[in-house]
Amino acid sequence: MEDESTRERLVTSAMRLFGEKGYQSTSVADLLQESKCHSGSFYHFFPTKQDLLLAVLERYRQGIVPMLLEPIWRSVEDPIERIFALLGRYRTLLRTTDCAYGCPIGSLALEIHEPDPSVRKLLADNFTGWVDHVEQCLVNARAVLKPDIDTRRVASFVLTVMEGGVMQSRTYRNLKSFDAAVASLRDYFNSLLRAAAREARA
Amino acid sequence: MEDESTRERLVTSAMRLFGEKGYQSTSVADLLQESKCHSGSFYHFFPTKQDLLLAVLERYRQGIVPMLLEPIWRSVEDPIERIFALLGRYRTLLRTTDCAYGCPIGSLALEIHEPDPSVRKLLADNFTGWVDHVEQCLVNARAVLKPDIDTRRVASFVLTVMEGGVMQSRTYRNLKSFDAAVASLRDYFNSLLRAAAREARA
Repeated sequence: MEDESTRERLVTSAMRLFGEKGYQSTSVADLLQESKCHSGSFYHFFPTKQDLLLAVLERYRQGIVPMLLEPIWRSVEDPIERIFALLGRYRTLLRTTDCAYGCPIGSLALEIHEPDPSVRKLLADNFTGWVDHVEQCLVNARAVLKPDIDTRRVASFVLTVMEGGVMQSRTYRNLKSFDAAVASLRDYFNSLLRAAAREARA
Repeated sequence: MEDESTRERLVTSAMRLFGEKGYQSTSVADLLQESKCHSGSFYHFFPTKQDLLLAVLERYRQGIVPMLLEPIWRSVEDPIERIFALLGRYRTLLRTTDCAYGCPIGSLALEIHEPDPSVRKLLADNFTGWVDHVEQCLVNARAVLKPDIDTRRVASFVLTVMEGGVMQSRTYRNLKSFDAAVASLRDYFNSLLRAAAREARA
């Protein structure tokens, strides 16, 4: 009997292996061993490895709030600090893996060179979902920012900084580049806050 | 006879194929076909595919000035504008490939999950070389920046922004994210210039 728990186990195993080894380097045999599933179950749920990749990307997308943001933001109210707490989460992921961590979405986005449109769309949807929530923080921080600030542009920039910082820290295997990126982003945010304060005074 | 031109042809073919398909997806057979070399020549120069990867990374490292920077900076004198002209080069690479372009170093850094130390070192050396030259621009721009600016940190941030911006534009297959990243970086630089000007006046 092919039940949902088997499917879930396959997706969870794939998340781990794609994250550790990459998508191309993970074989169906690796996935069967990791998930302790039979190939019949695998092909019942996922006719191809790419179908499993789509399920992984969908799980990441659905997990943005409950798995990533909610645990971090539960104890942080200030919308600007929420953004830096989110970046702090990536720092923790780097720190606890001796900087072997890579953002799974970013890694797949660069590893898969000619993605099927369905794969590319789900990679983009993951980026968009992350940026949506960061943008909401900026909208919630409107009182301390200039009214004409392009919240989408700045939110997209936060993702840029996270991805570029993780990439370098992973390559150097130390936190310095990530910390440098976040410190510069903090500088930038401080300049936005100061500009708004000056305008308010004027 | 195994001459240097055969070796060069193999490296050039590998640069192209690793860039287009990724490292893992490129087989020795692909490389032989692309380079029109025999397997004897291949293994004469490169006992393993990883040896060829090392040669590719070394060629990129040596090419930072003559292949990348020199052609861009020949016509740009202002050190801050040199940084944005360099970013403009990545925009052109994205634009002329319908945003399929990926920075080869960044892509390899995320694709190869457990790189051999020699590979990781050359990936890091490429990042370091790029950042060194951007930092030199910032040092040359000292007259218009605050004297206490951390030029290394800001130069590393420029690489962060380039890599994160290319990753997103490649995923969305449009220039918007890259342009958003560069626009925010320009904002940040303008805030650095304004802060220095205010301090100079005070």
